[in-house]
Amino acid sequence: MHILIIGAAGMIGRKLTAALLADAGVGGHGITRMTLADVAEPALPATTIPVSTRAADLAAPGAAAKLVAGRPDLIFHLAAIVSGEAEADFDKGYRINLGGTQALLEAIRAEAAQEPYCPRLIFTSSIAVFGAPFPAVIGDDFLTAPLTSYGTQKAIGELLLNDYSRRGFVDGVGIRLPTVVIRPGAPNRAASGFFSGILREPLAGMEAVLPVSRDTRHWFCSPAAAVGFLTHAAAMDTAALGARRSLSVPGLSATVAEEIAALERVAGTKAVQLIREEPDEVIARIIAGWPQTFSATRALALGFRADASFDAIIRQHIEVELGGRIG
Amino acid sequence: MHILIIGAAGMIGRKLTAALLADAGVGGHGITRMTLADVAEPALPATTIPVSTRAADLAAPGAAAKLVAGRPDLIFHLAAIVSGEAEADFDKGYRINLGGTQALLEAIRAEAAQEPYCPRLIFTSSIAVFGAPFPAVIGDDFLTAPLTSYGTQKAIGELLLNDYSRRGFVDGVGIRLPTVVIRPGAPNRAASGFFSGILREPLAGMEAVLPVSRDTRHWFCSPAAAVGFLTHAAAMDTAALGARRSLSVPGLSATVAEEIAALERVAGTKAVQLIREEPDEVIARIIAGWPQTFSATRALALGFRADASFDAIIRQHIEVELGGRIG
Repeated sequence: MHILIIGAAGMIGRKLTAALLADAGVGGHGITRMTLADVAEPALPATTIPVSTRAADLAAPGAAAKLVAGRPDLIFHLAAIVSGEAEADFDKGYRINLGGTQALLEAIRAEAAQEPYCPRLIFTSSIAVFGAPFPAVIGDDFLTAPLTSYGTQKAIGELLLNDYSRRGFVDGVGIRLPTVVIRPGAPNRAASGFFSGILREPLAGMEAVLPVSRDTRHWFCSPAAAVGFLTHAAAMDTAALGARRSLSVPGLSATVAEEIAALERVAGTKAVQLIREEPDEVIARIIAGWPQTFSATRALALGFRADASFDAIIRQHIEVELGGRIG
Repeated sequence: MHILIIGAAGMIGRKLTAALLADAGVGGHGITRMTLADVAEPALPATTIPVSTRAADLAAPGAAAKLVAGRPDLIFHLAAIVSGEAEADFDKGYRINLGGTQALLEAIRAEAAQEPYCPRLIFTSSIAVFGAPFPAVIGDDFLTAPLTSYGTQKAIGELLLNDYSRRGFVDGVGIRLPTVVIRPGAPNRAASGFFSGILREPLAGMEAVLPVSRDTRHWFCSPAAAVGFLTHAAAMDTAALGARRSLSVPGLSATVAEEIAALERVAGTKAVQLIREEPDEVIARIIAGWPQTFSATRALALGFRADASFDAIIRQHIEVELGGRIG
């Protein structure tokens, strides 16, 4: 099986690559070849499996066709301009998040026009496809009414994925990723960054800023759970999806106060004291439009599984990113 | 007020043009100028109001910019490839229904970048944005999960309209038109054509084909009600819409049997006997995925009104299209 990962240099892309190579397969099929693509050429992982790396701007003319020309059996499309940047740069967000996705789907369709071809395509959507007002628990039939350009671009990607799958051009699955915590490394331009920051920085002995009130509730998964959703989607029987190819996957619903309580249980009072409250009206307003709790009924029935607890998410970060040591 | 109608030569476009000219205004604002555009140049209506006509393919490079250069205050975007044709010709459907709408929104944004400009834009969406399985009554929070490429293109148009409106580039309202009956004139390539045909042909003394079973239920409005939805949307206070700019408007829910019973009440047994059953599996399968009944709660609260009855719809057709005489 030949696997193509677009957006392979990002946080999820790197962890997904590592998980796939560690398993050397997906759903009982061995990996014969991997292609890793991103705007900047991804690092070559250490493995005996043949891996090629490519620098490619998915939205540039011809770029998607080149990536698909190798006829990968399984494609992960993770490439995106994040929410904060897509809101700040309207043209860039539409060009990459909408135009790039369209280019990829069209390239797959063009490839199929030559010779039968219908790869499994895993599209990372986002809970940002939903916008307030919400019911107490968001069911699988709730409308996608995004309140950001990023969410709009992802919701459009879901619609295209459904239509191209219905037409038989691709075998698509969209995964609406919860907000991933704890993101390792430097903050990115996502408005959700502080949800990770208030855990990550104290665990490294550094101060963190909390821009919203402690009763702010949101929907989360760990990096390992996010990778698990994607590999599960790659191996699942898509017949069960019918025409609705995107899934709200099971996350953890938690308030900022619950995050902080978990941090205190795992890392002690000293860590919690490093969180400094600094209200930011702009961030608070963006977050107020975000979803808090999903039923994830379909995804649960299809075998997708949530993290066990916020304590487990924090311990995963300490183990994987900090070598077991709190700073 | 300068009004631009894109898709002015179509059935709804012509009736809308006539209604606007008859009222000589919208929402208390007089019409100073009208521009009528379509793929083929629309006919010039008889009026003292200055009207210009244009042949324009909205998706062609530069076409949208030319239409918007006159800075119309109110734009009706009715142009579309209908469902049957968009399903048969994938590329054409996406080029016009998605590409054309994107081009229009971008042309408006580009115009605003020169000098402040934020026209009211009425976008004709469709109940085809919804797809089975459905609840008994479709509420305003139900997801858009279209089962046709046409419905997909309209659902994407709605998302773009929301985002461009939220950003302040346009003041958009999307109207999800019910299936319009009785469409006058020749059948078009919409799969819904027979819903009109089984009334229109017998009223003209001609035989009509019924391709689905009589218990098939669907959601309807008359041509006059459709025009009324569009003019009401043009005059309404859009603040009440918030970020959800598209509305499921109040139609009539009726079965084919109820349609035929109304025909019998208005036009007698002789008319009904002209309906010949000729089951068509392809049409039946398409229609099975279509919605049947909506709550239309938001639209009703905003003053949108349904037709009184199917009898009234049939009488309207006899009056307006047949000069009061049944064939």
